[in-house]
Parts: sequence; structure tokens; C-alpha cells
Amino acid sequence: MKLLIVNPNTTAGMTDKIGDAARSVAAPGTDILAVNPDSGPVSIEGHYDEAYCVPGLLEEMARGKAAGVDAAIVACFDDPGLGACRELMDVPVLGICEAAMYAAAMTAGSFSVVTTLKRATPIIGALALRYGMERHCRSIRAAEVPVLALEEPGSDAADKVKAEVRRALEEDGAEAVLLGCAGMADLARRFTEEVGAPVIDGVAAAVKLAEGLVGLGLKTSKAGSFAAPRAKPYAGRYAAMAPGAPAAARAAE
Amino acid sequence: MKLLIVNPNTTAGMTDKIGDAARSVAAPGTDILAVNPDSGPVSIEGHYDEAYCVPGLLEEMARGKAAGVDAAIVACFDDPGLGACRELMDVPVLGICEAAMYAAAMTAGSFSVVTTLKRATPIIGALALRYGMERHCRSIRAAEVPVLALEEPGSDAADKVKAEVRRALEEDGAEAVLLGCAGMADLARRFTEEVGAPVIDGVAAAVKLAEGLVGLGLKTSKAGSFAAPRAKPYAGRYAAMAPGAPAAARAAE
Amino acid sequence: MKLLIVNPNTTAGMTDKIGDAARSVAAPGTDILAVNPDSGPVSIEGHYDEAYCVPGLLEEMARGKAAGVDAAIVACFDDPGLGACRELMDVPVLGICEAAMYAAAMTAGSFSVVTTLKRATPIIGALALRYGMERHCRSIRAAEVPVLALEEPGSDAADKVKAEVRRALEEDGAEAVLLGCAGMADLARRFTEEVGAPVIDGVAAAVKLAEGLVGLGLKTSKAGSFAAPRAKPYAGRYAAMAPGAPAAARAAE
Amino acid sequence: MKLLIVNPNTTAGMTDKIGDAARSVAAPGTDILAVNPDSGPVSIEGHYDEAYCVPGLLEEMARGKAAGVDAAIVACFDDPGLGACRELMDVPVLGICEAAMYAAAMTAGSFSVVTTLKRATPIIGALALRYGMERHCRSIRAAEVPVLALEEPGSDAADKVKAEVRRALEEDGAEAVLLGCAGMADLARRFTEEVGAPVIDGVAAAVKLAEGLVGLGLKTSKAGSFAAPRAKPYAGRYAAMAPGAPAAARAAE
Amino acid sequence: MKLLIVNPNTTAGMTDKIGDAARSVAAPGTDILAVNPDSGPVSIEGHYDEAYCVPGLLEEMARGKAAGVDAAIVACFDDPGLGACRELMDVPVLGICEAAMYAAAMTAGSFSVVTTLKRATPIIGALALRYGMERHCRSIRAAEVPVLALEEPGSDAADKVKAEVRRALEEDGAEAVLLGCAGMADLARRFTEEVGAPVIDGVAAAVKLAEGLVGLGLKTSKAGSFAAPRAKPYAGRYAAMAPGAPAAARAAE
Amino acid sequence: MKLLIVNPNTTAGMTDKIGDAARSVAAPGTDILAVNPDSGPVSIEGHYDEAYCVPGLLEEMARGKAAGVDAAIVACFDDPGLGACRELMDVPVLGICEAAMYAAAMTAGSFSVVTTLKRATPIIGALALRYGMERHCRSIRAAEVPVLALEEPGSDAADKVKAEVRRALEEDGAEAVLLGCAGMADLARRFTEEVGAPVIDGVAAAVKLAEGLVGLGLKTSKAGSFAAPRAKPYAGRYAAMAPGAPAAARAAE
Repeated sequence: MKLLIVNPNTTAGMTDKIGDAARSVAAPGTDILAVNPDSGPVSIEGHYDEAYCVPGLLEEMARGKAAGVDAAIVACFDDPGLGACRELMDVPVLGICEAAMYAAAMTAGSFSVVTTLKRATPIIGALALRYGMERHCRSIRAAEVPVLALEEPGSDAADKVKAEVRRALEEDGAEAVLLGCAGMADLARRFTEEVGAPVIDGVAAAVKLAEGLVGLGLKTSKAGSFAAPRAKPYAGRYAAMAPGAPAAARAAE
Repeated sequence: MKLLIVNPNTTAGMTDKIGDAARSVAAPGTDILAVNPDSGPVSIEGHYDEAYCVPGLLEEMARGKAAGVDAAIVACFDDPGLGACRELMDVPVLGICEAAMYAAAMTAGSFSVVTTLKRATPIIGALALRYGMERHCRSIRAAEVPVLALEEPGSDAADKVKAEVRRALEEDGAEAVLLGCAGMADLARRFTEEVGAPVIDGVAAAVKLAEGLVGLGLKTSKAGSFAAPRAKPYAGRYAAMAPGAPAAARAAE
Repeated sequence: MKLLIVNPNTTAGMTDKIGDAARSVAAPGTDILAVNPDSGPVSIEGHYDEAYCVPGLLEEMARGKAAGVDAAIVACFDDPGLGACRELMDVPVLGICEAAMYAAAMTAGSFSVVTTLKRATPIIGALALRYGMERHCRSIRAAEVPVLALEEPGSDAADKVKAEVRRALEEDGAEAVLLGCAGMADLARRFTEEVGAPVIDGVAAAVKLAEGLVGLGLKTSKAGSFAAPRAKPYAGRYAAMAPGAPAAARAAE
Repeated sequence: MKLLIVNPNTTAGMTDKIGDAARSVAAPGTDILAVNPDSGPVSIEGHYDEAYCVPGLLEEMARGKAAGVDAAIVACFDDPGLGACRELMDVPVLGICEAAMYAAAMTAGSFSVVTTLKRATPIIGALALRYGMERHCRSIRAAEVPVLALEEPGSDAADKVKAEVRRALEEDGAEAVLLGCAGMADLARRFTEEVGAPVIDGVAAAVKLAEGLVGLGLKTSKAGSFAAPRAKPYAGRYAAMAPGAPAAARAAE
Repeated sequence: MKLLIVNPNTTAGMTDKIGDAARSVAAPGTDILAVNPDSGPVSIEGHYDEAYCVPGLLEEMARGKAAGVDAAIVACFDDPGLGACRELMDVPVLGICEAAMYAAAMTAGSFSVVTTLKRATPIIGALALRYGMERHCRSIRAAEVPVLALEEPGSDAADKVKAEVRRALEEDGAEAVLLGCAGMADLARRFTEEVGAPVIDGVAAAVKLAEGLVGLGLKTSKAGSFAAPRAKPYAGRYAAMAPGAPAAARAAE
Repeated sequence: MKLLIVNPNTTAGMTDKIGDAARSVAAPGTDILAVNPDSGPVSIEGHYDEAYCVPGLLEEMARGKAAGVDAAIVACFDDPGLGACRELMDVPVLGICEAAMYAAAMTAGSFSVVTTLKRATPIIGALALRYGMERHCRSIRAAEVPVLALEEPGSDAADKVKAEVRRALEEDGAEAVLLGCAGMADLARRFTEEVGAPVIDGVAAAVKLAEGLVGLGLKTSKAGSFAAPRAKPYAGRYAAMAPGAPAAARAAE
């Protein structure tokens, strides 16, 4: 199966790390396509960044659709544009926050999230509510490291994250901890050993759950929330992305 | 005060109707600026359309910020991009769904929403949950009229909407009804008289509540969820909209 | 428009302060009538005090109705008797807790309340639940100052309130703070500057939202929860206040 | 033990019926004092009526306190003034809605309520929320009979109530039905037999649960929500009821 | 009336203590039958222990049914097997957690639970959710004493429990505290005096509420959740317990 | 990997069907062990049946643990004994209701469940609440076919199930439908095609999600809810199953 993973920011190094994390857990027959848009924010830290990452994310999704991918993943822990991707795609599309939360729900009585900046915590809290996980989620902690600090060699970002992971387990009573940023995808396995409790990376979780949904033969339901976009013109610079537009049709074939 | 109202779709006739509805309730000193982006979907009917309306919406917001508006309104009942607008702006920004729901909560024991298409109902349901209104909201009904049918002279769209308004009151026990599309802004007052219960248009509600918040001296809190976007580069076609970018700075001054 | 504000306790000095706070934000055409009952508790600190303030509150409402007010406000943060007032009145009636909560919800991602005594905190918590704001509300803190201490010149009550406002922002993650007593109406603007985040007074919030609802042409819905009281006799000392009673009718005309 | 039951309306015939229902289930050693205030509404149908029943209710409670009752019951299904009664009293005070809901929760997987008028349904819904019973409560149905119709010989009120009881069981999936008015206290046992499922009267439920709480040695907790009213003056006609007032003290001794 | 109390673990000393606690509050006419199964865990500390206590518990219930008991109690604070008992029995069956929570809800604005081991806290949290008490419940604290330590003379277990009771009142704002283990049944009355707030033992609470439900004439509703088990064979060692099996029938007569 | 699937009833034909359904979706390297206990109910229809299936289920789990399985599934839609299995096992254990609900949550905006008998609907509703899916779940419908009717050749059980599936989609607005009984495992794929929306079988869903969790390297968290059972004696017939008992140790090795 072909599994598209879109890092919705434009930092190629982070896309590589995400691709590596995905490949390290992918089943033998799973072909990982890890990509990022050309246009948009270099990191996603808040609603405004999210807004400007989504068009590029959708264009990568359309390309993946044209290439016949079997499932797709949005590899940012804010799960930006997830509903729009599901409307566009017929195959399953997973957010890494969503995947991590449900993976935790199936293996632990409760969980906490450790993310980058405090400003992300209400966004993740709103996702927990939407996914039905507000009671499972004990706390959302910020390590106060910017996303791109996780990419800098020699930074103490990983240590700060681990310190919050420990606090979540010890002070908040979490039984598992989710790493709340795609840029932490390389840390989960090591932390799991070091802290003695499940530490879950959303990228890996999404890869395995996506493989599972594809294996089940499940598609995204078109019976309501995620019905295909209605055909209509888009004005100006987005004309080519209009549902039913020749260019969109071309891209998606 | 200067009040910016952005219709996030590109249909100018709808922007005019929204502007008229706003002016019909605005206080004497309120100057209504009703605009729409040049680029994006001609109507917003689902998550995918939302995704492509938000960049244009934010550009209109940035323009309004540069022009020194005192408050802003997102005039689509899905409240697309509301968090991003709040990060960008220091002044209050209201969604018309949010405004209509809180106006109803202050004058009725419960409400229903009548919107255009069935596909909008889960989106509005998710907003009700986010705004704390899931218990106030008795039902979300779709009249099954596309957004732009409301703009066509001679269409029976208004009648279909009114039929659902009556059903919400009679069958669902709603005590007020919200019109769930900015394109219905001209119908509220007439329907209120015809059905004998409050029928609320979100555009008008947002205008009056925005005037109120400005009169209170309230700004959007920058203490968490809506802190200003962090300065960073945006790659490609969105470079000029990057937080801290010279062009963005220029637009916003 | 004529806006009735009833301080439901009998302390005239507090009524004056409330009236001043209201006038300081009222629109040019808004005529503020700030009154209090002759009979009842000198301050409202708990359910028992609430019970004995409501009949006097309703009599002031009836007088206001007879005088043709356009909207009314219950100026105690416990929002006592709000449902009864809404049954009696056709015009909008707002509680100051309710108004402050919705004003905060439109400008901040979350809020806390700082009130007078610990015993008020479960009452305000129950209101947050009823208004759908239990997830928006991060904490309800008590400064442990009795209501009337706020009226004493030279008291340190305001300092104690401000200390709790800071704690709500720093320790509880609130993005805005509501002052949970009508007697704090004079502190909001100053605190907003001093703490660098929105501090909201319910009296001012209710004035501006009431102006907005009146401007919208909204009335209290009579379609359910707040239908007019059914005509019936009241025995004994409340006979004159019975719905449909000649005296009540006279008072309300 | 002495058990005070206050019918908070002034209709003595209904007080008699309530007293009879209470006595029919009371334990041998339980002495039932069924009373009603002299002043207030003849029936309670909405928030306004509630407001005017509470002072009289509290005066009866104070008298009961002075007489050394061991527990008290508010015998109106809206549970008016319950918090105020709990502040005033040291002994347990139960509402009949609350008692009926918890009795149902212990014997059935879900329940519905059948009450008098549609206007009572949101009031009871708010109680279900406050008592934690919103998920247990399948529906709240109104038989559309005024409270006092239940007192009229030859009325078809009981038949209408029974028809709604059956609908709750058959259409709403309720496993038990609560009779949502103290005036229905005589119908529960007969309906239980006729419909083949538990039909619960709140008066009887409150009597038995109150006996149980007294037998447990439980008092109303004074550690927060229901701390005794703070001593303070009450102006005007309520002076004698002020907490700490000589008259109140006298009444309560 | 005959009241069956099943301690679902096999520690007879604990059954004796439970029986004593029950008899100390039982009404004169209540005959307490306190029993425990022969087979199963010596204490119940987690889901696995629960699983192995339930068959024995049900056999004691069947014996009680055959003996014509009027009500039954499951005397373990995890309320194991409560639904199964209710299916089996026609009379009311109460869990001690459930009874303690509703007794607290009727006498205090909020409560906390103090239990034995941390591993019990999510189990009790799930019960609070199921019983509608998640908002009433301020915290669930573990004294970190194993169940059987409560049975050892000279252990400091009671002191540890009391320390947590105090913390619940002082730090968590609880207005009452539930003792979260049947083995603490002897401590409630003493702690109530020592801490000055209601401390509630579930065994005593269940006895008094069960007496109340019996006095009301209530049975377990058979209209849904707790319909009698469908007749069918059980294979192997449970054949005799199959619904409708001759042995089961014999035991239950 | 070795994947244990325990059908907790004793009907071997159903175990075969479950095994077939599992193998039809299992990945190439997944070895399915489908088993059922020797002792217990022939079908599980209510709490009482659940209680008597769990010991046998746990014994099969212990055997699987001794055999070194990599994950385990409880193949009854009531998810009986799931917490106990998780305490016993270190590897992931999934319930088929849980797996189906999370699979639906990742591919549809909402879902309904179609189960066998009405008595199962509150049990499944309680699971939805526990799993955070109460808002995702639109309805739980019963086809009113007993579990074993699904095993009878020529029965119309499948048609009745399909009729309810259609009603869930058309009347309740579900976007996907879960088949609420392991005995329906063979129907999902066919129904998906016939009704044009995802119809999900929990057995298949659990197999694929379990493979995913194993691939992720996740174990059941031992940090709280599912810590290993504490070593202790079990009296009587369960002695061999006591945590730490030689026999249990032997079985589990």
C-alpha cells in the first residue's frame, strides 16, 4: 500500500525525520511518501500558521490522490485541515494527534500530552474534546521549546520534553504520554524505555492505524461530514483547486 | 467606530446583502466596512471550501488592521478561521455563529439552527460544542438549499428555510431559531414576525455584540490561545503574509 | 433606550457605584435607571440571601416594566431570580455573571472568576454549568472579602482581589478574569491595565450586551422557559404581585 | 423522628394530599408535619411562582427548625429554594425531584419524568443537569394539565398523566417514570401496577430517603455550599428573617 | 425486612465488620444477613480481583433470593457485578459506592473519596461518571493502604486514611468525604466528629437507602437494563448457575 | 505475530466464524488463535451472562499469555472483562466494541450501532460513554434477534440487522454503522456494499488495530488502571487463578 504523509510545514529536514519515523514502523508492504508543501509556514505554532499551511497541505493531498495513495496522514499535532482532507480524499486520512490519542486510549487508562509551546495547549485541548478524549486526557503540558529547536543539533529541547513527560506521569497521574509535535517523532521509543511507561509518537501511531484501516477495507464515509466538496468555481489564485475544476481534476487523476 | 465585516466567500452580491443587514442594525457612529476576498470559493459549503477561504479572509483582516478597525466579524456561519483572525488582530473578532448563539442564550431557554445543506450540520454542531452551547442547541436543521440559491430572485429557498424554522419551534421545542448562513441575513426580522418567536441572524447579532465589546473597551486577550503569531518565514506564495514579514507589516499598518 | 439596572440588595451606595459603572460605558442614547429594593438583604452572600432579595428585585422589575424600559439587568453576580425576571418581562433581561461570561468567551480562550467569599464559588460554578461555560471557566477564586468590605474606604479589599486576579492568570492559565461581584464594578478598567489581560466587570458587560440585544430588536422568547406567568391568585402578603392581579397589572402599566 | 414537609404553595388541599402520601410510607417512628405557607402562589408553575413561594417556604423551615425537626422536605417538583433551606437548616433537606431521581437511579437504568405543563420541562431539565442525572433522564414529558386540575374531582388529569407515562416507557425507552408534581403523589402506586414498571412519586421517595439520611446520622454539610447564612441586617419587610435577627433567632429556637 | 449484604471477598473478618456496621444503623425491623462467598479473592484490589469475586457474589445473591430477602447490597466500593445482581434479583440491589455518592449528593455540595490504593482511583472515577457524579466528585485520593491492612490490629492504616480525609476537605474543597472501601466501615462516625464535616461509609449508607427503597415499595425495574437473564444453557462448571437451570431455579426458590 | 482472540461464550461455531473473519483481514505474518472457554454461557446477552463468561475468558487469556501471544482480543461487543484482561496481560488487549468505535471515529463523522437485543443497548451506551464516544454515537439500535439466531442457517436475522442499518443511516443521520455483536462478523463487507456507507465489524477492526499497536511496540500501560494484579490468595475453586499462584504462574509461562 502507498501511504502519503504530509508534513504541513515547509521544513524539509522535519519531513525527513517524519519519513524516517514512519518507515521505522511501517509494515513490509507499505510504501511511505513523506512530503511537504512548497508554500507556507516553516513551522506551525498557532491558528494563524495553521491557516496558511492548509492550502499547501491540500495540494499535496490532491497530488497523492492522483497518485492513488491508499491512505494519508496529516503530520502536525494540531491536525490542521483534517476535515478538508477527508472531504477531498476517499481513502482514510488520519491526524497524528487523533491517532496518538486513540492508540493511548486502547492501551492506557489515561494520558497526558507534552507539546512544544504553551500556545498549543488550548488547540490540543479542543482536539481532545472533539475526539471524545477530554476525560482520558489528564493534562497538556508545554516544554516551552519552539518547534524548530527540536531540529537543532545540540539543543536541550529533548531533555526539556522528557522532564515534562516525567511530570505528567508523576504529578498528573497520566498512564501514558503523547509527544505533541511531529518534530518529536524520534524520541518516543527512547523515552518509553527511560520513563517506564508508554510514550507515544503520533506519526508512528498514525502509520500503524492507517495500515489497519486500509487492511479493514475502510474508506472515509461520504455520508455526511466528509462528503466530497461540491463542484463550484474558486475565484482568483485558487481557481485550479476548485472542486470539479479541470486542473484539480487533472491533479487528482 | 470602524467595524470590518469580511464575507469570506467571493460572491460580491452576498457581501452587499451582508453589508446592508449590518447597516440596518448598526449604531449611528458605527461605520460598516463589508468586504470579501478576491481569491477563494464563491460559497462555503464544507471543510474544503473553508480551507480555501481562510487565507483571503486573513488578508482582508490584515488590511482592516492596517486601516485601524475597532472590531471585525467573520460573516460565514461556519466561523472559519476565527482563531487565526483573533491571533492576528488585537481588537475583538466575532464569528456570526458564535454571536447568534450567545444572543440566543441571553434571550431564550434553548435554540435551534436552520442552515442550508445537511453537510453543514456537523460543522455547526462542532461549533456549538466548542462554544459551550451543545445543551442550549436543540437541533440543527438543513433546509437543503445551496448557499447561492438564497441569492437567486424568485427561488423558493426562503420558504424552505421558513418551513424548517417552524419545525424547529414545533417539533424540537426550540425557543428561538438561528439562521445558519450569512446569506439569510435579510430574513430574520420578517420570520420573527411570521413565526412569533425570535429568529436571529448572525450578522446582525455580531454587529451589535461587537459594538458592545468595543464599548466595553475589551480587546482580544493575548494571554494564551490568541497570542500574536510568532515571527517566522513563510515559504513560497505566502511569504508576504508571514508574521513579521515586511509586507505583512506594511499591510497591517 | 431606557435600561433598568436592579441592584438586588438594599445598599444604596452600592447601587450608586453600579449606576456609575453603567453610565461610564453606556451609549449616548442609553438612559440608565439604577435602583434597589427597599426590602431585603444588605448584601447577597449565599442562597438564603438570594431567596430574600428576589421578591424585591421582581417588584423593581415590575415597576420598570410599567415605566416601559427597553431592557433590564440583575446586578448581582449570582444572577438571582433571572428566570423569574425573564418570565415577567418581555424585553431582554441579563444577569451580570452571564453577560461577563459571554463577553469573555468572545474575546479570550478561557477565563477565571474572582469573587468575594468562598461560599459564592459553588453558586458561580453552577451558573457556569448552566450557561455552558464550564469548560471555558478555569477556576473560581475567592478573595475572602465580604461584599460590603468593597464599600469601605481604606479597606484592602481591592488589593486582595487583584492578588487573586494575578493568580488566576499565572497559576490557572486563565486568559481573562471576571470580577465576580457587582461591588467590584469600579475595578475592572484599572486592573486590566495593571495585569495586562482583560479584566471584565459584569455590570459594564451587561449594559453593552443589553444595548446590543435591544438594537437587534430581540425580546425574551415567550415560547417556553420564559412564558409569562400564568394568571392565578397569590395568598397573603404577595397578593398584589400575583400574575394578573389588579395591583400587579397597575404596577406593570 | 420529626419530618417536616413543606408544600411551598398555599393550597391546603394539596398539602393534605402530600401529608397523606408521606404518612402512607413513613416508618412507624416518623412523625410527619405537612404544612404550607400562608403567603404565596396557590400553585407553582414557573420561575416567577417559585420566586414568590420561597420566602414563605423558608419561614416554615425556620419554624420547623425551632421545633427541632430531624429532616425537611421541599414538596414541589421544581425543588424551589432548596439551597437556601440547606443553608438555614442543619438537618438534611431534600427536594422531591432530587429524591425521586436518585431513587430511580438506584433501581432502573434510566427514567423519564411526566410533569404538568410544558413550561416546567426546562426547569426540571436544569435540575437533572445539576443533580448529575442528565444522562439517566430519557425525556421530560408534559401532560398539559395545570397543577390544580389534579385537585379537581372528576377531572381527566390522571388519565392524561398515565398516557404520558406509557409513552415514556414505550417511545422513549425509560425504565422508570417519575411523577413530576407533588400533586400526583397519590397516583404512583396505582400506575406502577397498571403500567408494569416503577412509577415514582417524589414525596414518598423523599420521605424514605430522608429517614435513611437521618438514620445514618448525616447532617447537611456546612463546609461550603450550605454554610449557615452570614449574620447581617435585612431591610424592610424581611428584617425579621435576617440571619442573626432576634426574631429569626426566636423563630428558630 | 431481610437485607442481604454480600461482602464479595472471602475474608470473614471483614464480613463481620461490615455486618456490625450495618446492624449499627439498621432500623429495628431490619434483619441483616452479612455473608461472603467461599470462593474468590481475599480482597478486591483491581479489575482482575473483581472478575473472580463476581460468580461467588452472584451465588450468594441467588441464595438470598431463594431466602426471600427484601433488598441486597454489594459491599465492595468498586460495586462489582452490580448490573448482574440487578438482573438476577427482583428486589432493589445497591452498591456501596453508589449509595455513598447519592447520600453525599443529598447533603453536601460536593464530595471526595478516600480509598485504599491508587489503582482503585480510576475504577471509582468510572463509577462516578456512570452514576452522574463526576461533577460532584472533587477528587479521589488513595491512602496507599492495602485493603487487608485495615483489618490488622495496630496498623496505622486508619491514621493514613484520616490524613487524606483532611486533605480532601482542605486542599480539594470537598464538602463531604466518602470512605472508599468496605473495610473502613467502622471509621466514618469517628472521623465525622474529628474533622467536622460529613464522612460517609458506603455500607451504612446502602443499608439506610435500601431500607428506604423497600419502604417505598420499589423493585428493580425489569423494563430494560436489568431484565431477568434470558434462559439458556451454561457450559461446564457454571451449568448450575444458568438462568432457568434446575439448580439455579432450586437455589433461587 | 500471534494474536489471541477469545470468544467469551462457549459456542464453538461462533468461535469459528470469528476466527474466519479475523483471518480474512489479518496481515500475512499474523497467526490467529481463536478460542473459547469450556465453561460459561452459550451466548452473552446481558450483565449476568457477562459475569459468568469472564473467568473462562481470563483463563484463556492466561493460556495465551503462557503461549507468548503478542496481543489479544475480547470478541464480544459488550467488551466483558476488558479491564481484568489488561491487568493480566502485558501486551495490548482490545475489545471489539472499542476497536469498532475508534475505527469509525477515524473514518466517519458519527456512527450508530446495530446490535441484537434491546437489553444490550444500555450496556453499549455505557461503553460509548466510557470510551469517550457518546457524542460520536448517534443511536444504538436493536434488531431484536437473539445472538444465536445469527448462527442458524436460513434465519432472517441478517435481513433484520440490515434493515436497522439502513434506518440508522437514514433516520438517525449516522455516517457509519457498527455491527454490535461478534456473531455478525461475516456481514460487514456485504452490507457496506449494499448500503453504500461503512459498516464495521468489531472483530476485523480489533484485529487490524491490534496489529497496529503491536507494530508500534506499544504494551498495556502498567502505570495505573491496568497494573498487574497484586499477589494474593484466592479461596476455593479459583485458587489456581490467584495472582502469583503457582498454577497461575505455570499457566502463564
